[in-house]
Amino acid sequence: MTDAAGAGEHSFTTDAFHRGGFFLVQPAKKGHRAGTDALLLAAAVPSGFSGRLVDLGAGAGAAGLAVAARCSNAEVLLVENAPEMAECARASLALPQNAHLSARCAVLEADVRLADAARRKAGLADFAYDFTILNPPFNPASDRPSPDALRRHAHVMEDETLIQDWLKTAGWITKPGGGVAIIARPQSLPQVLSGFGDFGAIRIRPVHPRADRPAIRFVARGIAGVARDIQLMPPLILHAEGSNRFTPEAEAIGEGRASLFGD
Amino acid sequence: MTDAAGAGEHSFTTDAFHRGGFFLVQPAKKGHRAGTDALLLAAAVPSGFSGRLVDLGAGAGAAGLAVAARCSNAEVLLVENAPEMAECARASLALPQNAHLSARCAVLEADVRLADAARRKAGLADFAYDFTILNPPFNPASDRPSPDALRRHAHVMEDETLIQDWLKTAGWITKPGGGVAIIARPQSLPQVLSGFGDFGAIRIRPVHPRADRPAIRFVARGIAGVARDIQLMPPLILHAEGSNRFTPEAEAIGEGRASLFGD
Repeated sequence: MTDAAGAGEHSFTTDAFHRGGFFLVQPAKKGHRAGTDALLLAAAVPSGFSGRLVDLGAGAGAAGLAVAARCSNAEVLLVENAPEMAECARASLALPQNAHLSARCAVLEADVRLADAARRKAGLADFAYDFTILNPPFNPASDRPSPDALRRHAHVMEDETLIQDWLKTAGWITKPGGGVAIIARPQSLPQVLSGFGDFGAIRIRPVHPRADRPAIRFVARGIAGVARDIQLMPPLILHAEGSNRFTPEAEAIGEGRASLFGD
Repeated sequence: MTDAAGAGEHSFTTDAFHRGGFFLVQPAKKGHRAGTDALLLAAAVPSGFSGRLVDLGAGAGAAGLAVAARCSNAEVLLVENAPEMAECARASLALPQNAHLSARCAVLEADVRLADAARRKAGLADFAYDFTILNPPFNPASDRPSPDALRRHAHVMEDETLIQDWLKTAGWITKPGGGVAIIARPQSLPQVLSGFGDFGAIRIRPVHPRADRPAIRFVARGIAGVARDIQLMPPLILHAEGSNRFTPEAEAIGEGRASLFGD
């Protein structure tokens, strides 16, 4: 469901998620719009989660609000650096349709890559959160071979250090025993695993568009300060063979009726 | 099919693989015996492979002989450090049942962890192989939680540096453009990806005992000296739901009628 709330390049839409469980104000331009990634990331949080959760790279707030909608005892901080998107997140919280969630949610306009004192000053305190979810932006240019190999390499390197910097921030702001979850592309698996160095009880769930195709994403979840252990979970298949509809599991996850790791 | 060829602690058996396609002489003691891991690793080699292949940690020769049996233009070097197992590999090659393969196979008794001049002197020359397959032994003690946390940590660390040392050797002895494949446990994914740093076109295939259970192994394959790229492939499921029989794909792979990456 989309209502155009303006016209021209800076127009916005209000879109329903979780079959009307919450709404997002988003730029009408396609590039910034929230979708499956944010909902998959949100699903990494156990359904019984209760406590403070921070959504790093929140955009208009899709992942964080999806957690707030599914976990009625979650307090959610949406952290976004792009002013236009932080404004969308604030507008999302101001929607009357989100009144049942807004009291548990807040927006912080800050750069996730800030470190140490600068990070604390920006509002991201040490060991302050029970769960951190990360949806690092990636450069679409690094997704496809470019005729300019050097430029492509630069894009890939940018993505790689970005993931490691974001996970460093996650390591600092997540309480010992707290959860950390990230969604990323398979090519970023080494950076994610390297950045997960201080987390244990790691669960990785590959996400395949169809059962016979390579994964397009994976969601990794870890627990801060517990023993190293890695499990590769059965994949999530988005679409059934010969169909454009979501599989029952993907639909349940996308609508906030199920979690990704069965807890 | 097993024929006991001796008695007592040092007895050996001769076992058929690939439904009689090749045979292995193995210690009758269970701990050393070849099984699914070696056959899965062998299946990472494309069926049309032609050239020199080296099997690091060959044991009695299961993986290397499985490649020789499936790829009629492969020349296979079995590298094994444990004298008893190298002796088994030599006995395997001497079996009349393996006469159709033996001319293309040889055994080298050497330590895969040797570096530089010592490695070359032992018989593993720089950039000499078109394909390297690795089945690093792992310490079964690190597979299960031990009441002695320090001891368990030591075992895990041992496994981790072993994988990285073995992959360093693979990087040195594999030709640019040649393949490298390894089978390992999910908990070793960070070490494998870190050791695969110089390889590209990486394909990872998780191996699950059943569709709804976490992976017990994964096979990773890369190409030396090509651009970085990682794909997470659909999993291999070993057993169908409610059955102890292999799935058709696992059976085809185990019998040398199919490859793991469909090439």
